[in-house]
Amino acid sequence: MTTDPRILRSKEAVLGETYRLLAESGIGGVSIDEVSRRSGVSKTTIYRHWPSRSALLLEACSTMGAPMETPDTGSLRADLTALVGELAEHLRTEHWAAVLPSIVDAAERDPELADLQTRLQEAMMAPFLAVLERAKKRGELPRGARPADVVAGVVGPLFYRRWFSREPLDGAFVKSVVSGVVGLGAGKR
Amino acid sequence: MTTDPRILRSKEAVLGETYRLLAESGIGGVSIDEVSRRSGVSKTTIYRHWPSRSALLLEACSTMGAPMETPDTGSLRADLTALVGELAEHLRTEHWAAVLPSIVDAAERDPELADLQTRLQEAMMAPFLAVLERAKKRGELPRGARPADVVAGVVGPLFYRRWFSREPLDGAFVKSVVSGVVGLGAGKR
Repeated sequence: MTTDPRILRSKEAVLGETYRLLAESGIGGVSIDEVSRRSGVSKTTIYRHWPSRSALLLEACSTMGAPMETPDTGSLRADLTALVGELAEHLRTEHWAAVLPSIVDAAERDPELADLQTRLQEAMMAPFLAVLERAKKRGELPRGARPADVVAGVVGPLFYRRWFSREPLDGAFVKSVVSGVVGLGAGKR
Repeated sequence: MTTDPRILRSKEAVLGETYRLLAESGIGGVSIDEVSRRSGVSKTTIYRHWPSRSALLLEACSTMGAPMETPDTGSLRADLTALVGELAEHLRTEHWAAVLPSIVDAAERDPELADLQTRLQEAMMAPFLAVLERAKKRGELPRGARPADVVAGVVGPLFYRRWFSREPLDGAFVKSVVSGVVGLGAGKR
């Protein structure tokens, strides 16, 4: 691993411009030519660090959202309320929320990008899965419930509102999503 | 409205090629030039029927999926089981499932397409909303539950699996989605 500050700076410039291009014009707008032109880093240098456009996209996207902390309050309702609230806030305000559909779309036609997307998704969902697996051990999930299904049940409605129905992700909605999993009456823990 | 069969045929050819281009290369691949070249219909004629590329995309997409029938079995569980099963099947097999992310992505940067997408989404979700509003009148939804929130809770997990986590939409998952809404124990009606 290099620590030469000039190399680090040019890598950062390339990753930054890749991400900006992605945000401006979708994945179709990202070409090595354009990244080179904007960042002032030569194509030869770019290819020395990233063997392909997909590799560059992968690294530019891997730092897309700040990772969410995994809460551990001892209760599923409180853990989920924290996580769902934070995800809703990210979906409302963060830049990556405008960029992710571009990756989803391209992944429909490009298996390498589909792999990238799956990895991004798993990393993003890791705190949800951790919280649900702990809740299962404590007996807070219905018998037979699979944590991965519950992740889809919690995150799916938020993604649906953000990208498909484009309805507001307001506090009442966040609450209804959590209650859908934890149960309307089981709020005491 | 015209019924001249030559005009109808050329409109159909244009819509068909628009849709095929969309499926092959995403929304960025759809240009009036290319649609004209492939369909053999002149650009002048295309612009006579559709004033803009967005208008053409709108009509090509509006017939995207066959509309789903609204079941009316008298019970929310049976109605939802039918609808969720059918939607899962469509997401697994139908061509539009590979095309919709392209519209979602472009809609992030184009308000006219965002309107188009909202209309497509509302049409697609109408049977779900109808079934849930009837169930609310029968008292089958928890007091205070908003049908639009429940639609997100039912459809969101399916969309999440199809386009984000890319996990299988199997029978057990469909069942868990319905049970999440109707309640695990309330299956008798």
